[in-house]
Amino acid sequence: MTTTHSWPKNTWYVACTPDEIAEKPLGRQICGERIVFYRSKEKAVGIADFCPHRGAPLSLGFVNNEGDLVCGYHGMVMNCDGNCKSMPGQRVSAFPGVRSYPVEERYGFIWVWTGDAEQANPDLIPDFSWFDDPNWAYGGGLYHINCNYKLMIDNLMDLTHETYVHSTSIGQPEIEDEPPESFRDGDTIVTKRTMEKIPAPPFWQNALRFNDLDPNVPVDRWQISRFTPPSHIMIEVGVAHAGHGGYDAPADKKASSIVVDFITPETETSIWYFWGMARNFKPNDTELTDKIREGQGQIFSEDLEMLEAQQRNLLDNPDRQLLKLNIDGGGVLARRMLDKIIAAEQ
Amino acid sequence: MTTTHSWPKNTWYVACTPDEIAEKPLGRQICGERIVFYRSKEKAVGIADFCPHRGAPLSLGFVNNEGDLVCGYHGMVMNCDGNCKSMPGQRVSAFPGVRSYPVEERYGFIWVWTGDAEQANPDLIPDFSWFDDPNWAYGGGLYHINCNYKLMIDNLMDLTHETYVHSTSIGQPEIEDEPPESFRDGDTIVTKRTMEKIPAPPFWQNALRFNDLDPNVPVDRWQISRFTPPSHIMIEVGVAHAGHGGYDAPADKKASSIVVDFITPETETSIWYFWGMARNFKPNDTELTDKIREGQGQIFSEDLEMLEAQQRNLLDNPDRQLLKLNIDGGGVLARRMLDKIIAAEQ
Amino acid sequence: MTTTHSWPKNTWYVACTPDEIAEKPLGRQICGERIVFYRSKEKAVGIADFCPHRGAPLSLGFVNNEGDLVCGYHGMVMNCDGNCKSMPGQRVSAFPGVRSYPVEERYGFIWVWTGDAEQANPDLIPDFSWFDDPNWAYGGGLYHINCNYKLMIDNLMDLTHETYVHSTSIGQPEIEDEPPESFRDGDTIVTKRTMEKIPAPPFWQNALRFNDLDPNVPVDRWQISRFTPPSHIMIEVGVAHAGHGGYDAPADKKASSIVVDFITPETETSIWYFWGMARNFKPNDTELTDKIREGQGQIFSEDLEMLEAQQRNLLDNPDRQLLKLNIDGGGVLARRMLDKIIAAEQ
Repeated sequence: MTTTHSWPKNTWYVACTPDEIAEKPLGRQICGERIVFYRSKEKAVGIADFCPHRGAPLSLGFVNNEGDLVCGYHGMVMNCDGNCKSMPGQRVSAFPGVRSYPVEERYGFIWVWTGDAEQANPDLIPDFSWFDDPNWAYGGGLYHINCNYKLMIDNLMDLTHETYVHSTSIGQPEIEDEPPESFRDGDTIVTKRTMEKIPAPPFWQNALRFNDLDPNVPVDRWQISRFTPPSHIMIEVGVAHAGHGGYDAPADKKASSIVVDFITPETETSIWYFWGMARNFKPNDTELTDKIREGQGQIFSEDLEMLEAQQRNLLDNPDRQLLKLNIDGGGVLARRMLDKIIAAEQ
Repeated sequence: MTTTHSWPKNTWYVACTPDEIAEKPLGRQICGERIVFYRSKEKAVGIADFCPHRGAPLSLGFVNNEGDLVCGYHGMVMNCDGNCKSMPGQRVSAFPGVRSYPVEERYGFIWVWTGDAEQANPDLIPDFSWFDDPNWAYGGGLYHINCNYKLMIDNLMDLTHETYVHSTSIGQPEIEDEPPESFRDGDTIVTKRTMEKIPAPPFWQNALRFNDLDPNVPVDRWQISRFTPPSHIMIEVGVAHAGHGGYDAPADKKASSIVVDFITPETETSIWYFWGMARNFKPNDTELTDKIREGQGQIFSEDLEMLEAQQRNLLDNPDRQLLKLNIDGGGVLARRMLDKIIAAEQ
Repeated sequence: MTTTHSWPKNTWYVACTPDEIAEKPLGRQICGERIVFYRSKEKAVGIADFCPHRGAPLSLGFVNNEGDLVCGYHGMVMNCDGNCKSMPGQRVSAFPGVRSYPVEERYGFIWVWTGDAEQANPDLIPDFSWFDDPNWAYGGGLYHINCNYKLMIDNLMDLTHETYVHSTSIGQPEIEDEPPESFRDGDTIVTKRTMEKIPAPPFWQNALRFNDLDPNVPVDRWQISRFTPPSHIMIEVGVAHAGHGGYDAPADKKASSIVVDFITPETETSIWYFWGMARNFKPNDTELTDKIREGQGQIFSEDLEMLEAQQRNLLDNPDRQLLKLNIDGGGVLARRMLDKIIAAEQ
């Protein structure tokens, strides 16, 4: 039986954050597969969350001193390759193992490769090296949303929705007056929108204040969403006091950051959404990091109801064609790129 | 693909009450279709709850100053016909629209026509003109119940159940001693039961008190359920001091009212049940209206568990034939009338 | 349409405890069938939970003074054979009845026979006559668990899991050092494990204290699980001060009891699990009974998460073969016995 999925398999997805496996194993369904993630000594590991003995989830077990995962039902000890290593009173050499998944830890996240393990090259993880740069600070969170991962991509590649969904924080009518530009840039898709001489909306007024800048003067604002398959979106966002070069303004005239979005399919109708914000000002101010995280978490939670209701509507109307407007260009190009990748895999 | 439904489509159903759309749009599934209801200036409107742009539910949007519904995701503006009127930065003339539903406001309710719009004649809304009569007062509520709408019709066309389900309020053993009479009367089905020289049950003792009548003397009691398709049931109920003519007794010898039931299918196994009571005594006593509503709400909630458990049992036993006794005559005649209407529609 | 079930039908299952039908009828699904249990005068009765009139669940009704079950919707009176006995204003003689189930009350439980009523012989209820012995005391409870009943049998026939699932109470590493012995004994399956000169785990330390025995000296420990089809498991458990004969040690050198497990399928993926403990020391100490019940309830609740997660994993991986190790011998033999019984029924 072959099942067609809406996502690429031979690729790296964010599985979890290190703190999620710090204390005990984590069972998480990713791309339809139940996987247990855990830390074996230093290394992050992911194997099928299924004990070969009686099918208990290994994620209910524990990691022993040798760094092996022990099933919490009858004590089967699994090694990092998904093979049975030992079991009290048993000779396990002939026991079947379970699937092991290539796992990498990078940029503060645990990544998993859900396709053919032989093709799993860590170099294929996109370069987000500023994550490791001490001049940058990152704060973020995780939401579980009941929608297909492409709906979240659409959402982030068309920020026109800010005017409506986030009207009290980052939205402002000037956004939709300015059509975005969408284009392919190498292996990424970019959607860009710039607005000139506009008032800063509340979120950005705060950011200007954090940067000791007057929040009440006209600003130039930019939003540059960059999609990297399968579902990583970095959005450069910022405002500069108007007339100083906008995106290219000197640091003391602007407030900017990068919205970080890693979207991981759980099932065809649900995702793990890792969201966050990276900034290169006051990187050591952890109180500020917390404040930004809280604000962003509030704003991003406003999308949940919309996305879940949209998903339900689409399931109810499977034959209805949706519109592809210029504002949807980023999402359309991203989907086209995904379609090609998925087709090539099959 | 044709799907057969258990309900007529070319007919008026109660969709909601005006207060439900006073503040913002209301998304409600009716006869299997998701519809957004809202007030456009003075007029109540209903269109498919699906934005043609990206499938977001329009009910998460808002009504603008022109009385147009604006999608809360990316700002598509829909007019009352379900057509795209405008969208920031877009030429919408070629955009496909969504279905618009004939909607009428009458008798204090918003009505929707779920079938062929060309046949939607407001004159087909049954005449409940006493709703607009200042000598009458009305109080009611809305319950969501997980059962097919015909089970609720059965319930209301056979009040024998009062003895069991509502034994502490309107039920009394004398009800089942008196067989009801069921018959067709024009385009309605009537089930009638009269009881003579019986004690008044608690609910009616209270009603007698409200009418300054002795609650402790024998009464004549009547229940006249009138079903109008598809699912409107008005029940004339009352008691009179015995020997003064029962239903025809002079006003100062009786307490009476009309139980109002509008049943609207949501799906094949769920309904919106608009229940209430209309009375022509002390119509301006709003405190009394509240008191009656509270009492009736309590009594009618007793049916919910029974109806939902009955529905579950019927789903479990699809082939089991039910009995059609004389007490079921009203429900049987009503179902027969519905079957004819549904057959004629197909 | 024939449906294959994973359980025997011509057999006795525990349906409920007497207190569950003391006040009013009890609706309970057993082996996929919805049954109402009630007490008719002295006798416990079970009939299909479906009123022949309109399909209402009879379990929402009440038992009248004649010991007949009255439907709570319109008053149909059912007798203990599942036949319609009377109904106000109706001649019920030609009305179809519903299925009646053989029911027995024995050993403090209500038992139901779910198969061919003609074969229902109360003598087929296994002999647990010590339940009626005044030298024994019993305390227990009921858990609803979302798993197939065989997973619970596996659990109880392989107590190796105590080391992992119940590590803070009855588990100890010495369990898995000692391989169990599994064999058929007449119509039962036995799994036996004995451990010598080991420390007593916390639960048994307490039990030794209750018996005025030193909890801190080495003990011999035994676990003898006895499976009687379809799903009754009695486990003789105990510890004796080491060197006094273990299981056969004199009463003043040991603490022992019987873990009682009656497992009743609700559906293919859910069970009613009647658990308890019977002891022959201090049988009249009801405070002790309560204390033991509380402790056991806590320990047994630790299995729920594991069993439900295991069931979910098995549903996700229907083709995956599980291992059958020596520790699984009891479960394997029990399943084999069940397979034969089920095959013989078909």
